[in-house]
Order: sequence, then structure tokens, then C-alpha cells
Amino acid sequence: MPGRRTRRTRVERFDPESSGTGGSTVREDALAVEEPLEVRLGGSPYVVTMRTPGDDFDLVAGFLVSEGVVWSADQLAAMRYCAGTDEQGRQTFNVVEAVLAPGVALPDTSLERHVYTSSSCGICGTASIEAVHKVAHTAVADDDTMFKRELVADLPDRLREHQAVFDRTGGVHAAGLFDAGGELLCLREDVGRHNAVDKVVGWALRDGRVPLRGTVLQVSGRASFELAQKAHLAGIPMLSAVSAPSSLAVEHAASAGLTLVAFNRDGHFNAYGATHRIAS
Amino acid sequence: MPGRRTRRTRVERFDPESSGTGGSTVREDALAVEEPLEVRLGGSPYVVTMRTPGDDFDLVAGFLVSEGVVWSADQLAAMRYCAGTDEQGRQTFNVVEAVLAPGVALPDTSLERHVYTSSSCGICGTASIEAVHKVAHTAVADDDTMFKRELVADLPDRLREHQAVFDRTGGVHAAGLFDAGGELLCLREDVGRHNAVDKVVGWALRDGRVPLRGTVLQVSGRASFELAQKAHLAGIPMLSAVSAPSSLAVEHAASAGLTLVAFNRDGHFNAYGATHRIAS
Repeated sequence: MPGRRTRRTRVERFDPESSGTGGSTVREDALAVEEPLEVRLGGSPYVVTMRTPGDDFDLVAGFLVSEGVVWSADQLAAMRYCAGTDEQGRQTFNVVEAVLAPGVALPDTSLERHVYTSSSCGICGTASIEAVHKVAHTAVADDDTMFKRELVADLPDRLREHQAVFDRTGGVHAAGLFDAGGELLCLREDVGRHNAVDKVVGWALRDGRVPLRGTVLQVSGRASFELAQKAHLAGIPMLSAVSAPSSLAVEHAASAGLTLVAFNRDGHFNAYGATHRIAS
Repeated sequence: MPGRRTRRTRVERFDPESSGTGGSTVREDALAVEEPLEVRLGGSPYVVTMRTPGDDFDLVAGFLVSEGVVWSADQLAAMRYCAGTDEQGRQTFNVVEAVLAPGVALPDTSLERHVYTSSSCGICGTASIEAVHKVAHTAVADDDTMFKRELVADLPDRLREHQAVFDRTGGVHAAGLFDAGGELLCLREDVGRHNAVDKVVGWALRDGRVPLRGTVLQVSGRASFELAQKAHLAGIPMLSAVSAPSSLAVEHAASAGLTLVAFNRDGHFNAYGATHRIAS
């Protein structure tokens, strides 16, 4: 079975109360696991990403959506763990081979292969500044779903309620997909915020739900360009973040017709781009 | 001159107070700028990273340290902005050419080129899981600098005091380098936390200060593997983070002899790896 999501480790805890004595407390604590995952495509290494193990097939599928390689379930023929062992000869479950359906074009790996993305990296594998913007095969501008402002303001709390790994480690990002009625459709956690989103999108792709019309994606961190583009490529009309947006995320939301919500905390939020989807 | 670090934009603000009326407030607000930077090496594209403009030469120099390409100032012969214009023909200052000194080996770009890293991505350009770990030309295990626990606990506040862009946008990460006496040597902000660290390391490299013995690096976010490795490659013996560490960051700290401090807030902190550098 794939690796665990948390791992216990020895930690030395320094508290102000013990500063007079110069002592510290040694104890065991749970950490969010971070391990590399190598994705192979067409028999060749395609990308290595640092991720929290678990939902690896969702992660790979979502990554391929975010790269613009696939945008419907039938374009992804198969995924499987490859042989890959550690020094003790144990299967590591850290290499996944993805097989595209016949007729689906491989990305240009002469330019895009051999990419290593860190645990907080998003869209990788692009040769030039011009190619940073992926071609979207889905549109969100014509999605006329309305989201009640009270629901939007409540999304961070609804996300937080379901974060199991965060409760144990305090060290992971989360992404949660909700429908317009506020029902949670899917939640994923990862040390990398882009991975959490890819896992949600990959779950949806494999379930035949992409494009994700009528949904809103709540994330635990900032709203960067990469996350705005991931939402757009998956057909999600609204992205909501607890923290700040970047300038390029706001510009992308405006040009794509995406509703971008940021600083969503304590009942207040800011909205950018297609703000008309927020209903009073 | 290079682009600005903040940009004003129109925002629609939703507050609970106005929920009865269904109204919202439209105003202008400052955003942290996020723009792509293409790095060229040996005349070829090497990496594209999403970053906040400013200190671009520091960013490029630090990125090359983090990649293990250079580890002293004399290995980097020159850096310059290349021609690069937007639709209106204006110089974008988004392409930097780095020239290595004679005898310094180019990274194997047959495997590692054409990498795009997002605004929160760290070390990129690696072909396989085995190559995730860079070869360090600096050691930190033998650095016997001691850091007082009161100073360590105070670092997040000292960092926060100097964050100019955060004050305006709430949307950037920061990295600050301090000496063992608590003096701030360099602080950099960026939408990407890895970029903030690379900018600090690059500043130090260009100033002839690498390896950064006797220093501590305080960062505003989590302690991932990439940041622990960046500190190690720059010869920094202690990394301190406000939020949680990942399992691989803790493992790297232990094997490299790095002191890793995490959950550093409100006077408390956890320490991992080489905890003996913390003095009562």
C-alpha cells in the first residue's frame, strides 16, 4: 500500500516557561509526510513532484488536467504504480505510469520533460514565458451559477472542519470542492497547495465530472496565478482563498471570466474578476 | 527599471455588516505583483519562475546556488537583462542572462532545461527521484555557532517588523538572514517563499558571504524539504520557520547537521536535527 500521510518524529520543545531552567522537553510529534512522486508518461519520466502520499492517481490525473494534456476522463486510459524500491528493496509507491488514450497527444517532452517540482510548486514543464499560459479546453465565462454571499463567507470554516491531516500536523494545505448549495464534493490535503488542488481535480476527472461547472473551490492559502489557471482548466467558475491574491491571479480571473475570492476570513471577503456570480 | 512590486487594482469588498442590504463596497487595493522571470544560462533558456519583480539578480544568483551550480561569488561572471518586450514594445525586465566563470560547469541542460516553476516552487530541473538531493559543496555540520533561545523565539517578530510589501498587500512571503547577535543582514519578500530565500542567498553570494556560517534564516511560512536544502547549500546552520516542517525537511536537517526550528510563534518553538546549537 502507498506510504502514510503522517509520520511520528522526535522533537525538542522550547517553551518560555522553561527558559529559567534552560531546559526543554523532548517528545514525539506527528509530521506531514513529504516524499517525491515521479510521473511517467509514454514510458518516459515526465515530472517529479514533492507530495504527501495518498490519492496519487488523483494527483497524477489532476496534474495532467492542469498541464492541459487531458480534459475528460476518456483521455486517460490507465495509471499504475511502477516498480520502485528503496535501499531495503521495499516498493516505495513513488513512481506512477500514466497511459493516455489512443489519439491523445503527448506533451512535447523534447521541451518539457525532466521537471522536478517542489512541494509547493504548481504548473511545471514550460519552455518559455509565452508558454506559461496553458490553452484551456474548458470555458468558465458562460457558467451562470450564482453563489450566495453567506455561503462564500462560510467556505473556509466548512473546509477547516474536514481537515484531518492538518489537525494532526498543522502542516498541510487543503483544497475543497463545493457545489452551489454548499455541499462538500471532495477535499484533499497535501504539503503542496497545488497538489491539494490537483488531487481534487483528478478525483473529479476520474469520476467523469470535468468540466466542473457550478462548483466553487476553496483553498487554505494564497491565490496565485497557478491556482487560478488550475481552476479555469478544470472548468471551475469560482476560486476562493483564505489569503491574498497575486496581481497575475486577478488578471487571469478577469480575462477568463473566473470569480476570484480572496482574504476570505471572519465573514469578510474580497472579490475580483467575474464578481457577478456572488448573490446577496 | 524593473517592474514594480505592488500594483493597485479594483476590488469588490463584501462585509457582513452590508449583508442586509445586499450591497458591497468597490475600492482600490494593492496587490503583490507576480510576473514570470526567464533565466538563461549559456545562451539557452534554463528556467522560468513566477516571482515578484525586484532584486532579480539576487534571485538568479541564489537560484544557481540552490541548484548546486555555483557556491562562490567568483563562479558567476555576469548577469544582465536581455531584450524582452511586451505587446507595446516596452522592455519587460523579465529575462535575465547569467554567465558562469570560465571552468564552471553548466548544469546538464539535456536533462534539466526548459523548466517552469510556479510562484511557490523551489528547486526545479531534476530528472529523477535520485537527483532530488543536490550535492552540497558546503557543510553546516561543523558550524559550532550557538544561538540564544530568546533570540530564536524573537526572530519571527524581528522579521515581521521589516516586511514592507506584506504591510501593503498581505500577500507575500519573507526570508530574513540574521547573525547570532540578532542583527538583520538581509530581508527579501516575494510571492514565492522559495524566491524570498533565493534572493537572500543570492545577495550573500554576490557580496562574497557564502558559505553563510554563523547565521540563521527565518522564513514566514512552512519548512519544506526545499528550504532545508537551500539553507544547507548556502552553508546556513539554522533554519527557522513560523509554521510546520515536513517529514523530509526534518530528515534532511538530521542528515546534514542543520538546526531546524519550526512552529516558532508566541515565544514557543520546536527544534529538530542539530538542536545542540540552541543555547539557554
